[in-house]
Amino acid sequence: MAHGGGAAADVMACKQEEEEVENKAAWLLGIKTLKIQPYHLPPLGPLDVKVRIKALGICGSDVHHFKTMRCASFVVKKPMVIGHECAGIIEEVGSEVKSLAVGDRVALEPGISCRRCNLCKEGRYNLCPEMKFFGSPPTNGSLANKVVHPANLCFKLPGNVSLEEGAMCEPLSVGVHACRRAQIGPETNVLIMGAGPIGLITLLASRAFGAPRVVIVDVDDRRLSIAKNLGADEIIHVSTNIQDVDEEVIKIQNAMGSGIDVSFDCVGYNKTMTTALNATQSGGKVCLIGLALTEMTVPLTPSAAREVDVIGIFRYRNTWPLCIEFLKTGKIDVKPLITHRFRFSQEEVEQAFETSAGGGNAIKVMFNL
Amino acid sequence: MAHGGGAAADVMACKQEEEEVENKAAWLLGIKTLKIQPYHLPPLGPLDVKVRIKALGICGSDVHHFKTMRCASFVVKKPMVIGHECAGIIEEVGSEVKSLAVGDRVALEPGISCRRCNLCKEGRYNLCPEMKFFGSPPTNGSLANKVVHPANLCFKLPGNVSLEEGAMCEPLSVGVHACRRAQIGPETNVLIMGAGPIGLITLLASRAFGAPRVVIVDVDDRRLSIAKNLGADEIIHVSTNIQDVDEEVIKIQNAMGSGIDVSFDCVGYNKTMTTALNATQSGGKVCLIGLALTEMTVPLTPSAAREVDVIGIFRYRNTWPLCIEFLKTGKIDVKPLITHRFRFSQEEVEQAFETSAGGGNAIKVMFNL
Amino acid sequence: MAHGGGAAADVMACKQEEEEVENKAAWLLGIKTLKIQPYHLPPLGPLDVKVRIKALGICGSDVHHFKTMRCASFVVKKPMVIGHECAGIIEEVGSEVKSLAVGDRVALEPGISCRRCNLCKEGRYNLCPEMKFFGSPPTNGSLANKVVHPANLCFKLPGNVSLEEGAMCEPLSVGVHACRRAQIGPETNVLIMGAGPIGLITLLASRAFGAPRVVIVDVDDRRLSIAKNLGADEIIHVSTNIQDVDEEVIKIQNAMGSGIDVSFDCVGYNKTMTTALNATQSGGKVCLIGLALTEMTVPLTPSAAREVDVIGIFRYRNTWPLCIEFLKTGKIDVKPLITHRFRFSQEEVEQAFETSAGGGNAIKVMFNL
Amino acid sequence: MAHGGGAAADVMACKQEEEEVENKAAWLLGIKTLKIQPYHLPPLGPLDVKVRIKALGICGSDVHHFKTMRCASFVVKKPMVIGHECAGIIEEVGSEVKSLAVGDRVALEPGISCRRCNLCKEGRYNLCPEMKFFGSPPTNGSLANKVVHPANLCFKLPGNVSLEEGAMCEPLSVGVHACRRAQIGPETNVLIMGAGPIGLITLLASRAFGAPRVVIVDVDDRRLSIAKNLGADEIIHVSTNIQDVDEEVIKIQNAMGSGIDVSFDCVGYNKTMTTALNATQSGGKVCLIGLALTEMTVPLTPSAAREVDVIGIFRYRNTWPLCIEFLKTGKIDVKPLITHRFRFSQEEVEQAFETSAGGGNAIKVMFNL
Repeated sequence: MAHGGGAAADVMACKQEEEEVENKAAWLLGIKTLKIQPYHLPPLGPLDVKVRIKALGICGSDVHHFKTMRCASFVVKKPMVIGHECAGIIEEVGSEVKSLAVGDRVALEPGISCRRCNLCKEGRYNLCPEMKFFGSPPTNGSLANKVVHPANLCFKLPGNVSLEEGAMCEPLSVGVHACRRAQIGPETNVLIMGAGPIGLITLLASRAFGAPRVVIVDVDDRRLSIAKNLGADEIIHVSTNIQDVDEEVIKIQNAMGSGIDVSFDCVGYNKTMTTALNATQSGGKVCLIGLALTEMTVPLTPSAAREVDVIGIFRYRNTWPLCIEFLKTGKIDVKPLITHRFRFSQEEVEQAFETSAGGGNAIKVMFNL
Repeated sequence: MAHGGGAAADVMACKQEEEEVENKAAWLLGIKTLKIQPYHLPPLGPLDVKVRIKALGICGSDVHHFKTMRCASFVVKKPMVIGHECAGIIEEVGSEVKSLAVGDRVALEPGISCRRCNLCKEGRYNLCPEMKFFGSPPTNGSLANKVVHPANLCFKLPGNVSLEEGAMCEPLSVGVHACRRAQIGPETNVLIMGAGPIGLITLLASRAFGAPRVVIVDVDDRRLSIAKNLGADEIIHVSTNIQDVDEEVIKIQNAMGSGIDVSFDCVGYNKTMTTALNATQSGGKVCLIGLALTEMTVPLTPSAAREVDVIGIFRYRNTWPLCIEFLKTGKIDVKPLITHRFRFSQEEVEQAFETSAGGGNAIKVMFNL
Repeated sequence: MAHGGGAAADVMACKQEEEEVENKAAWLLGIKTLKIQPYHLPPLGPLDVKVRIKALGICGSDVHHFKTMRCASFVVKKPMVIGHECAGIIEEVGSEVKSLAVGDRVALEPGISCRRCNLCKEGRYNLCPEMKFFGSPPTNGSLANKVVHPANLCFKLPGNVSLEEGAMCEPLSVGVHACRRAQIGPETNVLIMGAGPIGLITLLASRAFGAPRVVIVDVDDRRLSIAKNLGADEIIHVSTNIQDVDEEVIKIQNAMGSGIDVSFDCVGYNKTMTTALNATQSGGKVCLIGLALTEMTVPLTPSAAREVDVIGIFRYRNTWPLCIEFLKTGKIDVKPLITHRFRFSQEEVEQAFETSAGGGNAIKVMFNL
Repeated sequence: MAHGGGAAADVMACKQEEEEVENKAAWLLGIKTLKIQPYHLPPLGPLDVKVRIKALGICGSDVHHFKTMRCASFVVKKPMVIGHECAGIIEEVGSEVKSLAVGDRVALEPGISCRRCNLCKEGRYNLCPEMKFFGSPPTNGSLANKVVHPANLCFKLPGNVSLEEGAMCEPLSVGVHACRRAQIGPETNVLIMGAGPIGLITLLASRAFGAPRVVIVDVDDRRLSIAKNLGADEIIHVSTNIQDVDEEVIKIQNAMGSGIDVSFDCVGYNKTMTTALNATQSGGKVCLIGLALTEMTVPLTPSAAREVDVIGIFRYRNTWPLCIEFLKTGKIDVKPLITHRFRFSQEEVEQAFETSAGGGNAIKVMFNL
């Protein structure tokens, strides 16, 4: 944004000041305690943009923070703005930003890596130990009227992709990154364990990467039915009983009809991982996305002795352009995943998180700001 | 072998007949019961060779068969010739064999794949479901005076590589295949869990692939001392107590001095695998070679969430030329691993297997035939 | 085929004898001289099948043989059965064949590799120096009533894929192999130089591999129009004048709208390759499929200094299952490429080759047998 | 560098001021015109360090600039400090630098990428279009008493690696990057065309990556003799006559004794590239490093049809740690390559460049500052 001198500049300065005063965010203050309070933004650097957030989805990790003030090894020790799946409109651009302009609609990649460590230089920036990630303590999130963010992490949305869809690039990125790491393509028969939000996203991503056949497994018929509507070739209802694994593996393999090349465990229980390891054919891959358990008891050696590799993923890298391409061309339609919408108000903010936490028929809960 | 006519041919035919009568092999008849008995060879196909076996090493899987009549899912249901790590001298060549001649000293790759299934065509023939493998039931092994084998699985030894070293190509291949799958190179810091035969072989292979720094871990000081002599940079004595993992991981990481890129678990216990998973840096790999346990209880999700992949291996493929190259150039010296030698006689055959089974200071037990 | 005893067997034997007598093939006897003459088949091995050929397409290499008695370094020195793009119906199966049965409709992969050399073992069997390939001298081809072929190279067609489409698996395989080697996926913007049969096939394959945007270039508007109908995003008419390269590169890059990741040169002239090298963005790939020239004069160093790699391809490997999958699911429709059909008769056989050689509006010329 | 208050700070400020005044650099003012003149450094950013340059080698590209005021597409339009292969001692560190301290001996990676474009994020930062590279117009180089540089591009040297060796990390990086891109390992037989500085560096790097056999080719016996001393297995004297290619290819292949997996063309003439393409076995790679010609006339299609890929390289990425490791462990000894040394004085500076330009027995010409 070019700052001229004189009266116009004054007006603008005044307007900006007002805006700073107005900016509000949802602060996580304690367990299940969110307050919408003023959020003073950091100064706009030359390569930054200021974005007015318009859509933000609630992620499972946000719910963890909301319910327990922690997620995995991350602990919320002081008030923190929550949220990270978001899209908005550019309101101001730093002095050296060339790729974006005021008024552009953008989806935001939430993590800022150091760009200088070995992992960053090698292109695996998602593993950067210095990562600053929206709403991952101690970094403030983006459930706010406005945020300041590096321009290179804001991706312009085409006209036919809505801001809500833009916000969905974040969860979609997990599926896209998983498909890339597992090398899904037109020759990869895919098994998905779990038809929750991540399982469904992985289903959509697998299809977009060309997987010829996708079988999805869950304990919940309603979820399976959604998976079917989203394009799963076969849905398989399973029990929670580990004793049933052998029988279910046969059922799954029969449903696939040919060898399973890649299995995604989108749950992370002993049973789901055991099923994935045993069902995958020799030389295939199991990609572990779901992290329900830390310590797992699984038959790891028999699958290792069939060269079934276990692939892990952490978030994503360089996924926004591809997600936007998938949304633009209609190869992926994320709209059916958005089941609930809330306003950004003190009345509704905790209600939205409770809805997301409640599971049930909620897949993606979205704020419209 | 060109068969001329006349008297000479008759003599040869006669001689051959005598030889067939003479051929003896070590038959596994029951638990800990090996008998040297006649072994009638199959006819020599046009692409086969007949090899007089001169050296054969005992492998852990042979010991399993010897002690329990089974190994993993393979069960010995009828008398079977044991053994598969071998080298010998070509005695006869099939009519279409061009690459080998009578008198050539060769190391034998023990597995015959179908060469027609998808896995074979894709170059992953070690995973071929139709594999016929020396001494893996129901296929007869090679602890025999002579065997018939496809010429393309017999690899000529250079003058400076002994037949015993040739036989060592088989166990060495496991380490070579593991190093290939884990992509060991001059930038890969390597941790090895276990200083038994496989751990030591993996140490030698890692070094030959250029690993700049190798740390090896065991519970046995004598084994660690051998590892040190074979070129480990650091040896770490650990306990068998799973409670010590965190402390030991720190000790191991300090000994490495920089990030651990690849860990080889050459044991396959909960503790060794837990140590490997936790010690390996983000984006690294854990290669599971040892198969002590089937069901493993390990912290799989935290490492998956650091994109530490778990790589399995099954035997090897296309490794003999590289093993022979390593032996020829001295990049690998396997001779220190050969700790015991036995003759191929009824008196010594069971004694050799008992020695190998006894562990202790036995690393590789070798027959000289 | 199970051979029972008694009268039925006699009848069958008799019938077979008759068939052998009847079998005819199109023999290339000299330049532009094809005669339909008896073709005595080799005996059926235990892993072979006998196939009654029903559809066969004419390839550019067949035309070369027809017109010049040679193709690249291959020279026709004695009468040879021509043709290799084919599909048919199983008429007899070898004693050990389990995967196929009499009456199965199959597409034939035309090359038989040795399965024993290093390249075969490593999965690059298309480069096998011992390859025996239908209609590539001195190996007889498949424009015949019947051929004997290894069962593992005959791929069963689903009900919704015709025999003509089955024959198209062969040219399609070239595109599929090129896409695999060039790693085409949903993030790969593709430029195709040349809208002839190979260019069009590569277009279809690129689309099936998920390429988001494909721009195709030719000197012929009619071909470009076909490309447009087959799904090209943009078609660009270019000149044959090498002076126009710079201008045309800009036009092509503008038509793509973003960086060109992979260019396929399906022609192989200095101008097409120069355009491909210059148009491809840093870090991309140029895949050279067309082989019009042997000696090429191209600006190779500037693109090398942008890490634009040049990828070569030779035929294909392991492509039939994927081609059939693409045809079955409709991801690829090859039917529009079949422009002419002929009967397998002395009257029509040379006419068919002349039609194919004539170019013009002929894309794929097909025999129905 | 922590700045305390009081008198000490004043002294330091004063000392710094003196230093700024003193800093001199070799400015390229015109063709073959270098003047040592004051060089005012940019301010030290929080993540920068100031380095006192102690050793700097002359590169072929520097010589191009010196002789012609240009190199490839880069043109020197205004006075520019020359030089980029350097090492020195840290004199001051930015406020947020943790990894380095005053007094550390470091080798400098000369290129500063934007760290924000797609290529940077994907880990291919050497292709960054915004690269600022020492001594590549319009960016000033490092033949100066002092330079300011990002800390993450300065790599600490171990005690047993000299500053001259540190400066050699830059040319060595070219060989290391080429070996990485060409995937050199213990199974890769290597042919090197050209025994000039880059050829010799590539020889050293190939060896360090484990290449079992390296054959090197040149027209100059003296260079070949150096190559032999540096560890080439075979040296082959060739002519400059393109007619000799076929004969020489046979000679080269015989010298290798087995298939050539990777050829490095470190020259870039039609003849060297033709030899490389024809000599490399099917499925191998030719890596084009030398850039003598822009337009090349070479038999590109026959090698493409044997799936011999052409790999380009541009500079390097993430190579310093590995180069330092190679130097520290003695896997690579670059000292024999340093044939001439000069002081950083007006008298000697042009003389040094003339020496480097003269070729002859000069391999690496080094300044000691």
